[in-house]
Amino acid sequence: MRINHWTNGFEVVHNGKQVLCHTYDNPMLFIGTGQEDIEMYRGNFKIEDYVTERMALRTFTLKEDEGSILIDFAGMIEMRLEISEEEMKLKFKCLDDALNRFWIRLSSDEEEHLYGLGEQMSHFSLRGKDYPIWTSEPGVGRNKNTYITWRSDVENKAGGDYYNSNYPEPTYVSSRHYFVHVHSTAYSKFNFKQKTFHEIEVWEVPEEISIVSADGYLPLLEKLTAEFGRQPELPDWVYNGLIIGAQGGTERSFSILEQALEKGIKVSGLWCQDWVGKKVTSFGKRLRWNWVWDEEMYPDLPKKMKEYKEKGIRFLGYINPYILEGTALYQEGFENGYFAKTFEDQEYLVDFGEFYCGVVDFTNPDAFNWFKDIIKKNLINFGLDGWMADFGEYLPTDLKLYNGKSAMIEHNHWPVLWAKCNYDAVVESGKLGEIVYFMRAGGNGTQKYCPLLWAGDQSVDFSIDDGLASVICGTLSSAMVGNGINHSDIGGYTSLFDNFRTKELFLRWAEMGAFTPVMRTHEGNRPETNFQFYNDEDTMVQLARLTTIYTSLKDYLKEAVKENHEKGTPVQRPLFLHYDEDNNLQKLQTQYLLGRDLLVAPVYLEGAETRDVYLPEDEWIHLWSGKEYAQGVYTIEVPMGQPAVFYRKNSFYKGLFEKIGTL
Amino acid sequence: MRINHWTNGFEVVHNGKQVLCHTYDNPMLFIGTGQEDIEMYRGNFKIEDYVTERMALRTFTLKEDEGSILIDFAGMIEMRLEISEEEMKLKFKCLDDALNRFWIRLSSDEEEHLYGLGEQMSHFSLRGKDYPIWTSEPGVGRNKNTYITWRSDVENKAGGDYYNSNYPEPTYVSSRHYFVHVHSTAYSKFNFKQKTFHEIEVWEVPEEISIVSADGYLPLLEKLTAEFGRQPELPDWVYNGLIIGAQGGTERSFSILEQALEKGIKVSGLWCQDWVGKKVTSFGKRLRWNWVWDEEMYPDLPKKMKEYKEKGIRFLGYINPYILEGTALYQEGFENGYFAKTFEDQEYLVDFGEFYCGVVDFTNPDAFNWFKDIIKKNLINFGLDGWMADFGEYLPTDLKLYNGKSAMIEHNHWPVLWAKCNYDAVVESGKLGEIVYFMRAGGNGTQKYCPLLWAGDQSVDFSIDDGLASVICGTLSSAMVGNGINHSDIGGYTSLFDNFRTKELFLRWAEMGAFTPVMRTHEGNRPETNFQFYNDEDTMVQLARLTTIYTSLKDYLKEAVKENHEKGTPVQRPLFLHYDEDNNLQKLQTQYLLGRDLLVAPVYLEGAETRDVYLPEDEWIHLWSGKEYAQGVYTIEVPMGQPAVFYRKNSFYKGLFEKIGTL
Repeated sequence: MRINHWTNGFEVVHNGKQVLCHTYDNPMLFIGTGQEDIEMYRGNFKIEDYVTERMALRTFTLKEDEGSILIDFAGMIEMRLEISEEEMKLKFKCLDDALNRFWIRLSSDEEEHLYGLGEQMSHFSLRGKDYPIWTSEPGVGRNKNTYITWRSDVENKAGGDYYNSNYPEPTYVSSRHYFVHVHSTAYSKFNFKQKTFHEIEVWEVPEEISIVSADGYLPLLEKLTAEFGRQPELPDWVYNGLIIGAQGGTERSFSILEQALEKGIKVSGLWCQDWVGKKVTSFGKRLRWNWVWDEEMYPDLPKKMKEYKEKGIRFLGYINPYILEGTALYQEGFENGYFAKTFEDQEYLVDFGEFYCGVVDFTNPDAFNWFKDIIKKNLINFGLDGWMADFGEYLPTDLKLYNGKSAMIEHNHWPVLWAKCNYDAVVESGKLGEIVYFMRAGGNGTQKYCPLLWAGDQSVDFSIDDGLASVICGTLSSAMVGNGINHSDIGGYTSLFDNFRTKELFLRWAEMGAFTPVMRTHEGNRPETNFQFYNDEDTMVQLARLTTIYTSLKDYLKEAVKENHEKGTPVQRPLFLHYDEDNNLQKLQTQYLLGRDLLVAPVYLEGAETRDVYLPEDEWIHLWSGKEYAQGVYTIEVPMGQPAVFYRKNSFYKGLFEKIGTL
Repeated sequence: MRINHWTNGFEVVHNGKQVLCHTYDNPMLFIGTGQEDIEMYRGNFKIEDYVTERMALRTFTLKEDEGSILIDFAGMIEMRLEISEEEMKLKFKCLDDALNRFWIRLSSDEEEHLYGLGEQMSHFSLRGKDYPIWTSEPGVGRNKNTYITWRSDVENKAGGDYYNSNYPEPTYVSSRHYFVHVHSTAYSKFNFKQKTFHEIEVWEVPEEISIVSADGYLPLLEKLTAEFGRQPELPDWVYNGLIIGAQGGTERSFSILEQALEKGIKVSGLWCQDWVGKKVTSFGKRLRWNWVWDEEMYPDLPKKMKEYKEKGIRFLGYINPYILEGTALYQEGFENGYFAKTFEDQEYLVDFGEFYCGVVDFTNPDAFNWFKDIIKKNLINFGLDGWMADFGEYLPTDLKLYNGKSAMIEHNHWPVLWAKCNYDAVVESGKLGEIVYFMRAGGNGTQKYCPLLWAGDQSVDFSIDDGLASVICGTLSSAMVGNGINHSDIGGYTSLFDNFRTKELFLRWAEMGAFTPVMRTHEGNRPETNFQFYNDEDTMVQLARLTTIYTSLKDYLKEAVKENHEKGTPVQRPLFLHYDEDNNLQKLQTQYLLGRDLLVAPVYLEGAETRDVYLPEDEWIHLWSGKEYAQGVYTIEVPMGQPAVFYRKNSFYKGLFEKIGTL
């Protein structure tokens, strides 16, 4: 990158394109003050801002200083510009403490495409909209035009919109082969609606914004993950089959497992989220959040776990960073002052929907260690080989934290602290690579501390914004900021307002799951009224075949996971990572590459008999028919169990793929 | 009012309360630039603003200048302050042409209440929300929590919200007994959400903002209407009975009329909106907008009109300021260049829902006179004694106007030009006080040019934001800015998505109508599938009684209408106009005084058997039982036909009221 400086302005140019520009008439920085109004209802936020002032910083002075360039904007912001061939750092110093709003414009043109901002569930290509960065519930429906969204808004303030995400982060990748990262956890907003610039708003003056470029997407992701940290590899046992989500106690859960095994379903784990006991609310069954084995509901669990582990089947549990009021664990945490408090130093309980919990204050090292030790003792030492590390998005903004920082700043940071707590517990127990935990919440830094994302709580339907299709979008988006290992609840999770999971949905989701790094089912929030595979013979037969396909891919998947660990190349990849010259790929968000050689186009529409697929220039073999295809758009028949999958003709794994094609 | 001036600031105080204040730290003015994004779909607007800059104007110089005070704000805005005991004018001069956004803060405290802003249908007391001023369709449902609103949004972008109004205007009345008026027709927004100030945003630097005070509400409304112009009195014939809305041609309409007369319903007029012919669309029956008698559909109309006029029953029609493409009138207007055009001087047609129309360019005096002459010739000379002067809100913002002004500026002005066109036609025909036309759209200036508002197109239901109740709120709001004569479609108008008018709704609406200045029915947008009084014997009997009540009030109503004409005291009044010391009245929006002596609390809830009423300190007699009540809250039984109505014991009209009570 290169700076050009003239009397009344300057620009930074990279590969012949303007990245940054400042003149008196078109200033790059705006600063001001605002007063936010934040309401949280069960993890759904209503955020309003009253901007009192927004001032353009037009005048500037520029000087060389110790190898970098120091620019003073109107005596209000000092910006140190550290610039090299492939990188630019903008380091800001605010000269007026009253300022709490910051806007920066980066140059763009109409050809630029943008990806990332964490896990975006509705739009992979981000141009044309704006995106607030604020971790929250993702919304039920996520589209104001759908009935489910409307009902969820009216009844639970929970409908959400296209931008709601458990894991947003202030990092995006440009089709110009650079990534832009804002070093701040404050609320921010990325305005990608303009033609000639992007505008980033941050609710503080950020310490730094960095722009890092590379020669292509793959080396760029390598740099990005080198900076953010890379994900560990998955344990070997994960690839041995399906992780079955079951609930209801020892007898019920293990008998579902046995039933599956009988039908030839390959199983790697049994995941019982209610291993801690349960509580019934109007939403459905909820878990008892006291993070210890419920001996009553799960008698003989230690014996069972051991017994099945010997057969190669692991047992997984559940935890989240909140503790239910009235439990012994709550009492312990409360007495030790481990929970975040009100500003009057009083008890602060968060409403999670008909039950109330304390927030473990991770900014207090003693509280962090206490909770980490709970994970070590109650989960790892107890014998769990994995768990869902749920939530992390619910930090209210009106509580007082140990480290003295505002919850407005820590809110987006919370999921990362939560990931780190799990990571440290596993590492300190010497179990990294043996245990797998999976998270939905995230923020910048999650990459290093979380081995596996799950796509959150989809609705049990084919809706674009909140059903099966949204999983693909979320996977590709998060992959672009360094989260290369994703999976989802097969069949979706949220069933509300007469929206029930069908057999078709389950099977379409399962056949997609066979072409992802991890296969796992979930019974959903209302198990009784939704389709469950274990109640249907035919589905179990079909699922058995799909697990055979999945386990057949073990070596192939392991190689991809290793590549993700070593170079940050995600396991599920946007096509343009490998076909960068092809201009038809930029907005594709329902097909992906699995590793280098498989192209997967899941069936995401109800009742579909065919699926339109775009194949970039290569030699492609249709997995099920063996028919060869060249570049182009094709309408592929997709009978149940045969999503549109292709492999590269010259793949090292050709023999394996041929075999899978006959399954 | 009085100005206090000190080194780094000044304030204006009135009756011991701060009205205006400016200091370096708390500036009163902000200016800046913004880029609006406006989408119109059939009169529904999606308005977004991207504010590039919003600068506080902190520094100032102040000097006396020719009897007024001249204040220069930061060299960017010059404000001339003309101040007297009861009035203050702020006259602005913008010193930088690039500025197109303006914000001013007026001081407030938590006790202040605010009313007006034109016709507000959801909130009479305006504190706590913000209100854009932009005339538009009012919305179907008008509350994002209702199913009808959601469906309307999804299918027609038409659901609306609490602030949508056919007639918003930038004028409000404070409980401090002053009114604030912004002399601008630009888009503006009144932010009443703050505790210590109000903020008014205007999308231009307004010429003037005036604040006028008086000793109480009544003298204040007298001043307000003196400034804006007062409404003419209604023709005497209006009070003689119901105006029946009927459609379908001479035979059908007049036979409905005859049927009503037979049942003893007192009728003052027959209103046939389809006198110009009709056109069927998916919304329902729409009219042929070519503004001439349809001889085919209404054979013998001139003869019939004459015949019934002799019996004391007038005939009313319909017109609006758009002309349907393909008609002879369109051709004439187009050839003469009377329609607004695109910026490329091409034909511009507006989509009114499956048919397309030209916009008569009222800023062109020739076009204005042409259309005025159409009203004179085709309506007045033809023999109509009244009409609905519909619409006025649909001026798109991307067309070119004759006077060279931006449609962004003329949009809110359009309903006033439309009202003036009707007014001039009637006045020039010497028919003022004989003819009545009624409008839903309005803006500042409407007061003088429109003798009668109607509350627009309510949904045919009891919903608070868009049903019967909203009529009362709209009436009281518009009354506070000088529109003292209101009425509504008895039974409501809009029937969509299986929302149908019931007999109960019709009768509750009719019994309210008996206690308003004008009674008029409408068949609604889908006459066939909704309840119509003429299909139900019992309803006709009940309606006959209600028209007897209404006509009995003739002298009383005429006196109130005269008072409105002479002093701007509205016919339907918020209670605090006469009971200003009572602090319980500020938020009442479902009861009103009709004239000085009647207190009316209409039944606005479905299935209601009682109605809660608040009576201010006075001696009240319940109209139907004769029972006496003192100040207090009472639960009153409200059998059908007996809304909660009270009269003052010492009223001059006591005898009349006693008689009505026996009807």
